[in-house]
Amino acid sequence: MASEKKNEKKEELGITVSKDENFSEWFSQVVFKSDLADIRYGLQGFIVHREWGTLILRKIYEMLEREVEKDNHLPVLFPIAIPKHFFEKEKEHVEGFAPEVFWVTEAGDDKLAEPFALRPTSETAFYSMYSLWIRSWKDLPFKRYQSRICVYRYESTTRPFLRGREFLFFETHDAFRTHEEALKQVRKDMEILKNVVEEKLFIPFIFFRRPQWDKFAGADDTYAADTVMPDGKISQIGSTHDLGQRFSRAFEVKFKDKDEKEKYVYLTCFGPGIWRIMAALIALHGDDKGLVLPSSVAPYHAVIVPIYFKGKEGVVDEAATKLKEKLEAARYRVIFDDDKDKTAGFKFYKWELYGVPVRIEIGPRDVENGTAVLVRRADGGKVVVEVEKVGDELKKQLEENDKIIKKGSMRYHKIHEAKTLEEVKKLADKGGFIKAPFCGVDEKAESCADKLQEMTALKVRGVPLDSKENPGKDDRCIICGKKAKVLVYLAKAY
Amino acid sequence: MASEKKNEKKEELGITVSKDENFSEWFSQVVFKSDLADIRYGLQGFIVHREWGTLILRKIYEMLEREVEKDNHLPVLFPIAIPKHFFEKEKEHVEGFAPEVFWVTEAGDDKLAEPFALRPTSETAFYSMYSLWIRSWKDLPFKRYQSRICVYRYESTTRPFLRGREFLFFETHDAFRTHEEALKQVRKDMEILKNVVEEKLFIPFIFFRRPQWDKFAGADDTYAADTVMPDGKISQIGSTHDLGQRFSRAFEVKFKDKDEKEKYVYLTCFGPGIWRIMAALIALHGDDKGLVLPSSVAPYHAVIVPIYFKGKEGVVDEAATKLKEKLEAARYRVIFDDDKDKTAGFKFYKWELYGVPVRIEIGPRDVENGTAVLVRRADGGKVVVEVEKVGDELKKQLEENDKIIKKGSMRYHKIHEAKTLEEVKKLADKGGFIKAPFCGVDEKAESCADKLQEMTALKVRGVPLDSKENPGKDDRCIICGKKAKVLVYLAKAY
Repeated sequence: MASEKKNEKKEELGITVSKDENFSEWFSQVVFKSDLADIRYGLQGFIVHREWGTLILRKIYEMLEREVEKDNHLPVLFPIAIPKHFFEKEKEHVEGFAPEVFWVTEAGDDKLAEPFALRPTSETAFYSMYSLWIRSWKDLPFKRYQSRICVYRYESTTRPFLRGREFLFFETHDAFRTHEEALKQVRKDMEILKNVVEEKLFIPFIFFRRPQWDKFAGADDTYAADTVMPDGKISQIGSTHDLGQRFSRAFEVKFKDKDEKEKYVYLTCFGPGIWRIMAALIALHGDDKGLVLPSSVAPYHAVIVPIYFKGKEGVVDEAATKLKEKLEAARYRVIFDDDKDKTAGFKFYKWELYGVPVRIEIGPRDVENGTAVLVRRADGGKVVVEVEKVGDELKKQLEENDKIIKKGSMRYHKIHEAKTLEEVKKLADKGGFIKAPFCGVDEKAESCADKLQEMTALKVRGVPLDSKENPGKDDRCIICGKKAKVLVYLAKAY
Repeated sequence: MASEKKNEKKEELGITVSKDENFSEWFSQVVFKSDLADIRYGLQGFIVHREWGTLILRKIYEMLEREVEKDNHLPVLFPIAIPKHFFEKEKEHVEGFAPEVFWVTEAGDDKLAEPFALRPTSETAFYSMYSLWIRSWKDLPFKRYQSRICVYRYESTTRPFLRGREFLFFETHDAFRTHEEALKQVRKDMEILKNVVEEKLFIPFIFFRRPQWDKFAGADDTYAADTVMPDGKISQIGSTHDLGQRFSRAFEVKFKDKDEKEKYVYLTCFGPGIWRIMAALIALHGDDKGLVLPSSVAPYHAVIVPIYFKGKEGVVDEAATKLKEKLEAARYRVIFDDDKDKTAGFKFYKWELYGVPVRIEIGPRDVENGTAVLVRRADGGKVVVEVEKVGDELKKQLEENDKIIKKGSMRYHKIHEAKTLEEVKKLADKGGFIKAPFCGVDEKAESCADKLQEMTALKVRGVPLDSKENPGKDDRCIICGKKAKVLVYLAKAY
């Protein structure tokens, strides 16, 4: 391997900035160089999901699908088209979304009699059909979801995996007999998010009840999960909405109850933010070499990189192929990178960029000795093991790699405390959340939130669900100085 | 089980027409009553895919994804939006598709500077990026695909799973160094289609090279698979296109070849018709009780239906639950329908409508005897087996069910022969293909094809790929009477 060649490859492949020094540029480079997405399609906010990104996103989707199906959701697929009159049935909903909607107005040579929107979200589509599908209390709860779709919003600033005009979506829409059951589902949705995002992807988050002024357009209440990104800003990675009976009244989603009376269902909808989860996955775990993937979403658990010496390619290939087959039989996802045109060094860089959890190196000497070298992506830790034991060792190394990722994931998850506006201002650029006393989270407190945001760019993210933290007796709202009713979390947000 | 109740349920659930007597109405009823799709969304050509349909379609997608990945295709995801100027780069392509395209012209309060089309197909999207991604002969072959997407075409008549304004899509886009390699891929695409559609779904088809006047807009050659539907009409269930260098020239998809010269790649694209495959699956195998599903796509291999007697529900539930767990451990997909509000009769109807391959009945007497009853969906064949042997027996019954489906699938696959227009006319309403001598499949023969279609509604589907059938020395084109150059297949088509 000529060092000249090595340098050439390094430049072509590697990340050239440090994550800690320039997170924004680092993120853009990882998105592009790890083959996650390409922004050169030529249409703002419409990106091409590349191969490695698509494979990872598929894993995320599969995990979410499994979780919601375990919770008795059945899959459906709705049209992308929202006829204009659907959209206008729920007043707050249309007011909230109208400025963001793309309209299809023509087809072939015709002007359409009624334009349709590209779904910015699918409440109106689902509930127009729920009014036909739901008849009796026996049909309830009625839980459906759709997966692997996109939604469309006319955003002004866009960024891959953070904000798009087209972005990947996943949504559940559930109907219940009582409001109590609907609220239970909100908690269940949080659990589903936790099971995937926290347990399997190691992305820590806080689940908030949002202030009344920051609800989903058309919801009675919005609950949402926030994670802290490496630049200290908060990213909402999922939300679930208590829609009450607003949409069921607008769309006539009624059922005959046990008492034979016709009643409106209570609706909830839940949307894990596929893109935002992906963004957090990239951002929280990645390092200056590129992506670092938990085993759950890694398209490959391990890459076998052969160390070729002239004339010894055959024995190495044979040993590597055998090992691959053995590992695959044990249900590991393994790739053998036997490209003869690329150096081992190039392959090391490439698979590090891709974040594959474990690299297995096999050279002619390993073949002679009956060994292989395993290298963890997260910390570069190395072990040499007998080839027969690679399966067991891989399991161990994957667990260790996950453990290191999980531990590291908490480093950005900061919660500061402040009692006064002065203290808040001092903490405003420290990143993460600031816990502070506030006069409320209902409509009346909105003006305080507006003032705060104007002064500091901080937003009120809400009160954590099930929070038992209360303001002290003498705590005052950091803005209006009235007696504090709640301890809210403040943060700068994406 | 009161017979009154039974009748009520039968009416609510069952198919009320015979497939042989009124295929069209039968098809509509199965689509609706087996929970495949709902056409009441209120927008022509945009259907809602319901639960059971979505589960089956997912299986079809998974099978195709596995096959193309085995053939070294990597997944990507492209925007739905095709900017107007992309579209206009390949002249024939835009001419062919322009009348069918939906246009997004507005967003929020803005008129878009450049409208974009909802993709009717994605050649222009893919190749605009291929010009950035492909550099050298070492990058070739370059094989990518996207799955679980929809495309949009402004069709005048629409029908669920047969023709939609929005319909499910799957597409591969491959770039090659030589035309020879591109043609090899066409054959590989046929194999992929065969492996899924014929081998696993038991849908027989013929793979044609289409006449020159019936090519994909922008292709040098189109190859397509036709299956015969129960009404005798032909449905195209997939196609693959030899695009030559037309698109690579239009989009500047070039590579540096081994000789250091810049050359244009050869492109192919392949689209199994997800909807058409689904339509054939429904139509070919279904019967007057509803769907009949091959084991490969059945969301459940078996449904356990308990036969409850008052006071004995507990023992039956216990035995059924145990059996379900055992079967699931053996990797069968099983559902236990323990709904206490529904009669066993209702459940029989329901799961027959759904086409689940095997029904397992367990009643209190079975529990006592340690037995269970297995019933095949395809022919109603029944066996009583010891409960310990249900796993092995299920395997056997699934195979038997598949065998019956496979055998039955050939019943519509008719190929008639004719030598003269008179003979063709007599066979025109018999259904299936008519093999007949023709003056050609190049542009010069188009006028004969037009005349034939005007007279008989029959279209020239082409010559089967690798056909060794040649017209006899004295055979004459059935239209112009000139010496026949080819034996073509004629058919009425969807």
